[in-house]
Amino acid sequence: MKRTTYAGLVDEQLIGKEVVLKGWVQKRRDLGGLIFIELRDREGIVQLVFSEEFGQDALAVADKLRSEYVVEAKGKVVARDPKEINPKMKTGKIEVDITDAKILATAKTPPFYIQDGINVSEDLKLKYRYLDLRRPEMQKNILLRNRIIQSIHSFFDKNGFIDIETPTLTKSTPEGARDYLVPSRVYPGSFYALPQSPQQFKQLLMGAGFDKYYQIARCYRDEDLRGDRQPEFTQIDMEMSFADQKEIEDVTEGFIAKVMKDAMGIDVKLPFKRMDWDESMARYGTDQPDVRFGMELKDLSDIMKDVDFKVFSGAVKDGGQVKAIAVPGGAEKYSRKDLDKFADYVERFGAKGLAWLKVTDDGFNGPIAKFFKDADLREKILAKAEAKPGDLLLFAADNSRVVANTLAYLRVEIAKEQNMIDESKFAFLWIVNWPLFDWDVDLKRYVAAHHPFTMPNENDVHYLMNEGEDPHKAYAQSYDIILNGLELGGGSIRIHTRALQEKMFEALGFTKESAEAQFGYFLNALDYGFPPHGGLAIGLDRFVRLLADRDNIRDVIAFPKNSKAVEPLTSAPQPVATKQLEDLGLFVAKSDDKK
Amino acid sequence: MKRTTYAGLVDEQLIGKEVVLKGWVQKRRDLGGLIFIELRDREGIVQLVFSEEFGQDALAVADKLRSEYVVEAKGKVVARDPKEINPKMKTGKIEVDITDAKILATAKTPPFYIQDGINVSEDLKLKYRYLDLRRPEMQKNILLRNRIIQSIHSFFDKNGFIDIETPTLTKSTPEGARDYLVPSRVYPGSFYALPQSPQQFKQLLMGAGFDKYYQIARCYRDEDLRGDRQPEFTQIDMEMSFADQKEIEDVTEGFIAKVMKDAMGIDVKLPFKRMDWDESMARYGTDQPDVRFGMELKDLSDIMKDVDFKVFSGAVKDGGQVKAIAVPGGAEKYSRKDLDKFADYVERFGAKGLAWLKVTDDGFNGPIAKFFKDADLREKILAKAEAKPGDLLLFAADNSRVVANTLAYLRVEIAKEQNMIDESKFAFLWIVNWPLFDWDVDLKRYVAAHHPFTMPNENDVHYLMNEGEDPHKAYAQSYDIILNGLELGGGSIRIHTRALQEKMFEALGFTKESAEAQFGYFLNALDYGFPPHGGLAIGLDRFVRLLADRDNIRDVIAFPKNSKAVEPLTSAPQPVATKQLEDLGLFVAKSDDKK
Repeated sequence: MKRTTYAGLVDEQLIGKEVVLKGWVQKRRDLGGLIFIELRDREGIVQLVFSEEFGQDALAVADKLRSEYVVEAKGKVVARDPKEINPKMKTGKIEVDITDAKILATAKTPPFYIQDGINVSEDLKLKYRYLDLRRPEMQKNILLRNRIIQSIHSFFDKNGFIDIETPTLTKSTPEGARDYLVPSRVYPGSFYALPQSPQQFKQLLMGAGFDKYYQIARCYRDEDLRGDRQPEFTQIDMEMSFADQKEIEDVTEGFIAKVMKDAMGIDVKLPFKRMDWDESMARYGTDQPDVRFGMELKDLSDIMKDVDFKVFSGAVKDGGQVKAIAVPGGAEKYSRKDLDKFADYVERFGAKGLAWLKVTDDGFNGPIAKFFKDADLREKILAKAEAKPGDLLLFAADNSRVVANTLAYLRVEIAKEQNMIDESKFAFLWIVNWPLFDWDVDLKRYVAAHHPFTMPNENDVHYLMNEGEDPHKAYAQSYDIILNGLELGGGSIRIHTRALQEKMFEALGFTKESAEAQFGYFLNALDYGFPPHGGLAIGLDRFVRLLADRDNIRDVIAFPKNSKAVEPLTSAPQPVATKQLEDLGLFVAKSDDKK
Repeated sequence: MKRTTYAGLVDEQLIGKEVVLKGWVQKRRDLGGLIFIELRDREGIVQLVFSEEFGQDALAVADKLRSEYVVEAKGKVVARDPKEINPKMKTGKIEVDITDAKILATAKTPPFYIQDGINVSEDLKLKYRYLDLRRPEMQKNILLRNRIIQSIHSFFDKNGFIDIETPTLTKSTPEGARDYLVPSRVYPGSFYALPQSPQQFKQLLMGAGFDKYYQIARCYRDEDLRGDRQPEFTQIDMEMSFADQKEIEDVTEGFIAKVMKDAMGIDVKLPFKRMDWDESMARYGTDQPDVRFGMELKDLSDIMKDVDFKVFSGAVKDGGQVKAIAVPGGAEKYSRKDLDKFADYVERFGAKGLAWLKVTDDGFNGPIAKFFKDADLREKILAKAEAKPGDLLLFAADNSRVVANTLAYLRVEIAKEQNMIDESKFAFLWIVNWPLFDWDVDLKRYVAAHHPFTMPNENDVHYLMNEGEDPHKAYAQSYDIILNGLELGGGSIRIHTRALQEKMFEALGFTKESAEAQFGYFLNALDYGFPPHGGLAIGLDRFVRLLADRDNIRDVIAFPKNSKAVEPLTSAPQPVATKQLEDLGLFVAKSDDKK
């Protein structure tokens, strides 16, 4: 019997027709001589009815069916009795009276129910991933991911981009995150690295004249894992020659709009809003602002620089800031205890406490209210903070980094608690005009804000090229695309001349020798006529997760690793045979050999 | 200036129009006050004309241009003077009179000419791959590869297949080729393996209910390299549930037909021919027959079993065969010296010499002709071998393996030498009904002819399931797709029950324990209701190579490795920092530690 349609696609149009279905037994109800089977496949569930009247042999088969048995069944689609209609089921108005049926495979009782919203440990789900993936919500996620992938291919193909595969066994680049290494057998003691991105290769493709490249590329990072990180992840990668920032942003918007339409049925408004990095940091304290709600950061430094409250005036005098957010109606909603909890939390950002004021009809309430009794001062604060009676003012007074991190955290946390976010919205936003460099507080040195191949703004090139100027003042031709307060991806116009690329490495602390050792082949390439070019990469896993409205990218990856980078299904990674190590010229250090 | 079209796409329709082009200087001819530039981009080459009349500044720019400079130029498309028309150029009827031009990048003189058919060492080309890829033939190959990839996505999407990404950091499977390993940092001494194919994962996806899967998947094999092998390669991978062999072959034919149409403009005739494995071995001595020409192997064992020539009669008596091919007109074309060379060559297949007869009008010529003077015998030989006067008969007399390898080699080699192959043809062919097992002469044990997950023919299942029967007699539900005498890919219906899968491992020499250790997770999965399923994989690199008519898959891969698995561009693989090894708990063996 050849399948005629999917279980989940049987509808009223098929009433009176014969169908052949193949799928899994979701549920079985035996009413004695009448057996109902919910049959499940990738498109959904339909009810099969078995009785002596429809088919005696089929009824005998139904009698043997158990959960997760695989079955094929032929029968006639009929309308359900009006009082049997199940409005919760897509196929709830019909059922199929089965005349023939056959068991294709039996099944043991699964370790968990094949249904949505189960409360089962992540590792158990991953160990039996093939069962976990049978659950309708997981089927939906993987099908959505496929729709997005198809939409991407279709968009880029129509727009003259070429899908070019780049190597995944390549050279290690210690700059950036940690590489996964692959030992060479031909040259024992030498290693390939799995790429963190195809950055160099896609730039070389521009040098090779391919002019419009894209790839859905597998990338690798050997980092400690968090919710949005996996050892291997997928990136929508593109690069264009002879294009400026605007053209690359236009292409990006075009493909995002197509994905939103194809996969979600949503028309997004183009162009997306653009915001300078400086403005985003000032208004939201972050370069990944969630603009679906207000409660922006307000700078009160000017007002506070001479107040009696030394925490505020001192911070400004030390070159820092005093900023605040006004929580609408927050005066009643947050108790002192609640606020103490916040104060404890923001210590991790370096905040030395959390100052707050509740706005009343005629003044302020709270431990520091006594410093702000002056009516004129109060008016200025309320005006600047855009606060009104009943609101709660939360302050941060410190250097700009601590202030930004503290208030950016509080803003989002409180918005979530107070349901201030319209979860149905997809708020896309460009953050543009980034600094070229970023001061890394851990490494205590400048690092590339994007990466070392980013082109400075045209007017800032002199900071790098001219002897004696400070390269770290330069801003960059780079851009991030934000969705709902999370970075989807980003890109930049790239440096395409050797002279500027060398200066960039120098500004990052490379010596001539170390730049040559690491990137010599790339610098050489720039000698041979590289076109102006730029591009962008978007994290596919996160993009799908946001569209699927899931909390963890594991839910949109067919076979992800757990938080220890283990694949519980196959138990990878595992020790290997001695012969395999010998071939590679490697020894495994005994634990006491290890530092 | 924004580009209006590609250099290679400027045509007569644009005469009189202004265009903006961006590309590389292919050639510069200075006629004094009149400069011709051949401008090259990914679509081709067009001639630019610079003169004082069209633009003085532009002429000054043209004066500075050298090979491989990157330039943008604006000008008017004009028809060439009839006597200046270049019929060899796609754009040979027009040229562009340039009014504005700008140098976008300068270039050093490249280490080799950017043109087709250059005679440069492979390693030099790979070191400067970005220059090598600028050559029109390489641009064409990569563009063709893209067309094929787009065609594949489009076909599978339209037919309800889902693109699902499978992991590349997974478990090592010592069965099969050698794995590339990836050391784990979280569990020092443990390793992931890069997959040789997504075989297990795609079967698990069938168990998960996705029912129609495809993926253009990166795969890895750490084997010594030959022309058609690369450490990483790409596979068009698909799998279907509830489908029989015929349906999977139909889908495969559908996508190949679409690729041939989209990428080559060729309508292939469906369905492809089918040939049993036994027949292919008998007629061509190989399971990858090139059916674009005849010269098939003819079995003369019956005729030769009693002849005086002991090499022939002895071979038959020892259970072997005597087979021959008849080379049309070969009697004159091949000298004794030529044939001695063949004899030397076929020693590698185990042949103990090469017997031959030249057919004359009234008998045979050659060293063994004296054994075949009997007219009746002669008639029988000529009839069976389908030979006529002027032909050359080449014999192999040995066990079936040696005979097959020897004559299969000679058949193809001679066909090439004698131009017997219609190179314009694309001859697709299914080889079906394979043995399930294959005797490995090196390992001296049975191995899976396809892989251990292949379903036996329905009528042969008893060989595995019944105690005391010989499983190695079973034939399989497997199929290879052949193009012009090369395996493009293959597949099979898979085993979908634990009981049969266990018997299969047993027949391959696994113990219960070793099967469990290696494939336990997969056997367990089969307990939970796996649908009948099957699939197929096609090597993309070889497919593109055959359509691009190249000798080496390196020509259709953007950044391939050389024959030592080295990427000359980046010099990967390389030694890594001690810190990186420490993180992984690894020591590199000193050379004298190595066995």
